Amino acid sequence: MKLLEEKIRQDGKIFEGNILKVDSFVNHQIDVKFMNEIGKEFKRLYEGEEITKILTIEASGIGIACIVAQYFDVPVVFAKKAKTVNIAGDVYTSQVESFTHKRVYDIIVSKEFLHADDKVLIIDDFLAQGSALCGLIKLIRDAKATVVGAGIVIEKAYQAGGKLVRDMGVRVESLARIQSMSPNGDIEFID
Amino acid sequence: MKLLEEKIRQDGKIFEGNILKVDSFVNHQIDVKFMNEIGKEFKRLYEGEEITKILTIEASGIGIACIVAQYFDVPVVFAKKAKTVNIAGDVYTSQVESFTHKRVYDIIVSKEFLHADDKVLIIDDFLAQGSALCGLIKLIRDAKATVVGAGIVIEKAYQAGGKLVRDMGVRVESLARIQSMSPNGDIEFID
Repeated sequence: MKLLEEKIRQDGKIFEGNILKVDSFVNHQIDVKFMNEIGKEFKRLYEGEEITKILTIEASGIGIACIVAQYFDVPVVFAKKAKTVNIAGDVYTSQVESFTHKRVYDIIVSKEFLHADDKVLIIDDFLAQGSALCGLIKLIRDAKATVVGAGIVIEKAYQAGGKLVRDMGVRVESLARIQSMSPNGDIEFID
Repeated sequence: MKLLEEKIRQDGKIFEGNILKVDSFVNHQIDVKFMNEIGKEFKRLYEGEEITKILTIEASGIGIACIVAQYFDVPVVFAKKAKTVNIAGDVYTSQVESFTHKRVYDIIVSKEFLHADDKVLIIDDFLAQGSALCGLIKLIRDAKATVVGAGIVIEKAYQAGGKLVRDMGVRVESLARIQSMSPNGDIEFID
């Protein structure tokens, strides 16, 4: 998605350690108008697919997922990082490793909100090692629901996650696939 | 907002300890179509006010804020619970007490995303003790920006937060104000 690549080049900030910050429009401030363009693009890519629910993970996936969901006219469910004392009863659970926060945490989705007849599109901001995406796929499969695919805003294609998940037979559509980047600001995208 | 009161009566679940769960449309699953009705209502209430930014707090405020922001045509900024190693540099910070999670945490907003000329509408799902709302107001005031008001989906009006914040001179619009509720399912709203 050319518009997104331009936006990343213009507003993204690259730090040592292969860290790309897109805090000005995705991860801290959210450019809601721009997210609508992202929603339209996912709708175009998944046109014709039956989708009953969008699944994402807190926190930064939620805003994107809600805007995107409007184009599919379905509810959003967000997996929670397990800590709340308000979550009671039956949940699906899996483990996710955060390389940013350098820890492993449990994510949960209440069984109330994922059913065997659900056709689920996963939406998330980043795909790098694929840990969050694999965790979400496990939740859906534990519910015996169908994984229609994943819609990712930015894929770090030089990391293992994209191949890992595609090799599982899951369709992954990433709107910007970064081949390489360097702290001086150069970013190469895969067409 | 009658539609919201009906939805809370129909889909909300009340637990011991004055806990209201609206997980089926606000806090875990998000009914995006319904959130659009909430967005329209906040737009109606704040019609004529100049607003340049919507501020909320992760995680469950983000989805609502993004949908609402579409009616004001402004970006969303969400305050982060301080933990990430990706946040560097200058931030505004304040402390918030979570009664649900029984802990105090720091919230931060990058100075990049709040400026003295911003007119900020705060959006959040719940108002109870007012700790999150006071924390967000402090961030805005530290940035010398203007607090236009707060848009709250559900106010527990029998708790201290609403009065506390209104007494600070901040406009608070809550779409459903709960006067009392009991675990047998009875909920009374303030008109």
